[in-house]
Amino acid sequence: MVRQLSKAQRQARLVELLQENPFTTDEELAKYFNVSIQTIRLDRMEMAIPELRQRLKQVAEQTFAKVRSISGGELVGELLELELGQHATSVMEVTSDMVAEKSKVCRGDYIFSQANTLAVALIDADVVLTGSARIRYRRPVYLNEKIVARAVLARKKTNKYLVKVVSKVGAEEVFVAKFVVVAR
Amino acid sequence: MVRQLSKAQRQARLVELLQENPFTTDEELAKYFNVSIQTIRLDRMEMAIPELRQRLKQVAEQTFAKVRSISGGELVGELLELELGQHATSVMEVTSDMVAEKSKVCRGDYIFSQANTLAVALIDADVVLTGSARIRYRRPVYLNEKIVARAVLARKKTNKYLVKVVSKVGAEEVFVAKFVVVAR
Repeated sequence: MVRQLSKAQRQARLVELLQENPFTTDEELAKYFNVSIQTIRLDRMEMAIPELRQRLKQVAEQTFAKVRSISGGELVGELLELELGQHATSVMEVTSDMVAEKSKVCRGDYIFSQANTLAVALIDADVVLTGSARIRYRRPVYLNEKIVARAVLARKKTNKYLVKVVSKVGAEEVFVAKFVVVAR
Repeated sequence: MVRQLSKAQRQARLVELLQENPFTTDEELAKYFNVSIQTIRLDRMEMAIPELRQRLKQVAEQTFAKVRSISGGELVGELLELELGQHATSVMEVTSDMVAEKSKVCRGDYIFSQANTLAVALIDADVVLTGSARIRYRRPVYLNEKIVARAVLARKKTNKYLVKVVSKVGAEEVFVAKFVVVAR
């Protein structure tokens, strides 16, 4: 939260903030500026900044063009950034169909799929298969939380790659995985 | 394959075979009896034995009634048998939407999901979360192959359970996993 700014100051800062992190929500911006969500929406409309979902989609489409190993629709989550053979990041929002009815938490297989498809997308090869993995769920993830997964290439040995993935909600780790993936 | 039997002998043996293993396909039966698939279909019709898909569904529905931890539709695959807290088996046929476009093999996250949801279904508790897992993919699985996953409770310590899952296509292991799941 910052001290109350003039409208012009706020709108200028809003543009800066969204350039730094295009995935900041209207709610987060409203808190930051200590104004209502409606004010943020009006600011965005005046400055022709699309809503979060649209911004995500734009970034995801541009970034996805770099991927070699998997086809559109197979990646679980939206790709935020990718440097082939180095690192990649995706975001997945937990929707009601992903929540287990009995436990009311996000199903583990969705969290796994986000990380696994990201680890595969990272590899600079056309055909990539998962060989093995060690995974750990650190805390339950709830409805509407956004899981940001970051995959980093840790080691490469001929056609075998060790990829580490850390998935977070905000600053909190919710899932970690080490994948061995194989290019064929 | 057996020596050619009379129709009555064949039909009697067919009933026995399907009682032993309700998941035998018409193709497998045709090979066994050394007759055409059409003959097997006619035998089944005469004896009012439903087709495989229907037999699977019946067994799955009866068996699923025992599950406590997950709701219908959340289990990936069809449940074949279940003894709560002991062992469980499911089958999943690889359909075209499960095959990765580039590698032409079944996506690893589907194979994981079948095993993971089976490990959770096995537990005799209402709320079960996955804590960690070690998994290994042993060979690629192709379109139309049927993956039979079998989960066995290996160890229980207070509310933590170690579940081993072995997934096979025919007699061949395609995937193995050890899950630690936690009842809450």
